[in-house]
Amino acid sequence: MNELWSRRCRDLIPYVPGEQPKGRTFIKLNTNENPYPPSPMVIKAIKAAMGESLRLYPDPECTELREAIALALDAKAEQIFVGNGSDEVLSLAFQAFFDPDKPIRFADITYSFYPVFADFYGLTYREIPLDENFALPLEPFLEPGGGVVLANPNAPTGRELDFCDLRSIVEANPDSVVVVDEAYVDFGARSAVELVSRYPNLLVVRTFSKGRSLAGLRVGYAVGNQNLIAALNSVKNSFNSYPVDRLAQAGALGAIRDMDYFRATTTKIINTRACATCHLRKLGFTVCDSSANFLFVCHQNIPGKTLLDGLRQRGILVRWWDKPRISNYLRITVGTDEDMKALCAALKEILDEQI
Amino acid sequence: MNELWSRRCRDLIPYVPGEQPKGRTFIKLNTNENPYPPSPMVIKAIKAAMGESLRLYPDPECTELREAIALALDAKAEQIFVGNGSDEVLSLAFQAFFDPDKPIRFADITYSFYPVFADFYGLTYREIPLDENFALPLEPFLEPGGGVVLANPNAPTGRELDFCDLRSIVEANPDSVVVVDEAYVDFGARSAVELVSRYPNLLVVRTFSKGRSLAGLRVGYAVGNQNLIAALNSVKNSFNSYPVDRLAQAGALGAIRDMDYFRATTTKIINTRACATCHLRKLGFTVCDSSANFLFVCHQNIPGKTLLDGLRQRGILVRWWDKPRISNYLRITVGTDEDMKALCAALKEILDEQI
Repeated sequence: MNELWSRRCRDLIPYVPGEQPKGRTFIKLNTNENPYPPSPMVIKAIKAAMGESLRLYPDPECTELREAIALALDAKAEQIFVGNGSDEVLSLAFQAFFDPDKPIRFADITYSFYPVFADFYGLTYREIPLDENFALPLEPFLEPGGGVVLANPNAPTGRELDFCDLRSIVEANPDSVVVVDEAYVDFGARSAVELVSRYPNLLVVRTFSKGRSLAGLRVGYAVGNQNLIAALNSVKNSFNSYPVDRLAQAGALGAIRDMDYFRATTTKIINTRACATCHLRKLGFTVCDSSANFLFVCHQNIPGKTLLDGLRQRGILVRWWDKPRISNYLRITVGTDEDMKALCAALKEILDEQI
Repeated sequence: MNELWSRRCRDLIPYVPGEQPKGRTFIKLNTNENPYPPSPMVIKAIKAAMGESLRLYPDPECTELREAIALALDAKAEQIFVGNGSDEVLSLAFQAFFDPDKPIRFADITYSFYPVFADFYGLTYREIPLDENFALPLEPFLEPGGGVVLANPNAPTGRELDFCDLRSIVEANPDSVVVVDEAYVDFGARSAVELVSRYPNLLVVRTFSKGRSLAGLRVGYAVGNQNLIAALNSVKNSFNSYPVDRLAQAGALGAIRDMDYFRATTTKIINTRACATCHLRKLGFTVCDSSANFLFVCHQNIPGKTLLDGLRQRGILVRWWDKPRISNYLRITVGTDEDMKALCAALKEILDEQI
């Protein structure tokens, strides 16, 4: 039957996203969702958008949402592009800014979709190895090349890139686009958005999924020079005629306008992260300093897979990859204080069994 | 500044969707939206999905929605694939089933995204000319080839393809996939879904935007043999990790379950279409027999562009293309009876001015 599939399709290796469990109730620390519900203003905005107007196509330009994002970031609406989650925005950016004959650069340990997008558009790339502490080596990114993609903070390590280093990379690549993926920036890292008006080659990509508790909708956006935004619009409009749906636009609008709620919930997560880091280290775990809403954790005596399975048996889902260099690590989403207490208790049990 | 754009991006010609007016109130007969609001069950379902769970990613497999669609179509959930609007489903199908070395075939006058998708994936294609009545010539589709894409009813003509002809095309192409785009099938045409269990090479693509009044959400789906659905899943999961958002899934679920409302509203549109066709013919217009929620209309004495502009001045938006063979035609969405009365009155005014 596979003869009906295209060759491209036969060669694919599908991405496996973190499990979304059905039935049994787990403590879900595996997909970096926010443990707090979205702002009440989100619900209010969706209710207001929920009537008869659903029969009409959405505003293809997301005008009102772009204006609200611009206001929140002290930017102009023309500097904002909105897409169906930051994955779509990233994909469009790979298409809009990179050419096959000039290799792009990203870290060897980073968001796993970058090589997928590159392959999809027939682009070449260099994976630059992080050092043994998962820090980004600066030199390879200062050479001229076909573009750069940086996750900041990085995933799955949680490490923040030094702001001066980031600026140096942007300055060293004036003829190609530097994409900074800030999916996890809302939890304490310094954003590159403040550099956007100064550097025409800088594109910052963000999402409502994490800091704004809206993973259930699919809304991401890019901030950059008008010229870069025009390229994203051109790519999007040539191919994908209709945009973010009405309720997703409305929900995101409610979220971006409620800065107080955003600050309160992200601050709670930052505090929980500090406590959990401390506890895990006391238990003997190595925990990377995280600026994200997850922790990257390993134990010198127990394989990552053993920890993963032990936690699952105890009703806690975390993320683990069978990949070189990181197969002893778990990525653990920062949940509520109670979630993290349960996590630490479960890990202590597993340790006690093993030692 | 364009040197920061990829070559691919510089070469693009963006698609221009039908206008979504802001400010002034128009009678909107330009984007084939349903004039009736979605079912009350849609609103109820969205309300129920609208709480705290928005912080969690959607079900990537759209399980509940696929089961409900399967129930409605007397199919199995494994035969259903759900995507962000039928445009996304079509795009994934082009990727999953067609290879560059075997030209695919579609009509010269049909949905304008087919050549766009083909170009995007580097596919070759033959555009088969419709005859002077916009009927599909059968022969070129009965030869072996790399696949076929048929809109049924066709857009922008509204013509339904003879069911036996459709089956002949599917039978004549056992080694390649025949995609039947049924975006407009809900308004009286005979669906090919009944053939899906018999022909492993048939994929039927549908949308909630038209018949279910949900253009404001973005939900489309495909029905086909499990093997074809597996290919679509493979392509989607290799690239685009997260699916249709929670509220869109919920809304579509409400819509598919309310068959009575669906039948009542689509029947109203079919009746309005019959009346409007009759009126327009009395005014001297040529009106193609339509099985869709739009009419394809021309007048022998007045250019299409003149009609378009005259209607816009009178507060009515319709669709016109500056393209060979159809530049004298307008595509007019079937609205309410009142909308169509206003349309006919405006056209009569324009005729009286011209003659």
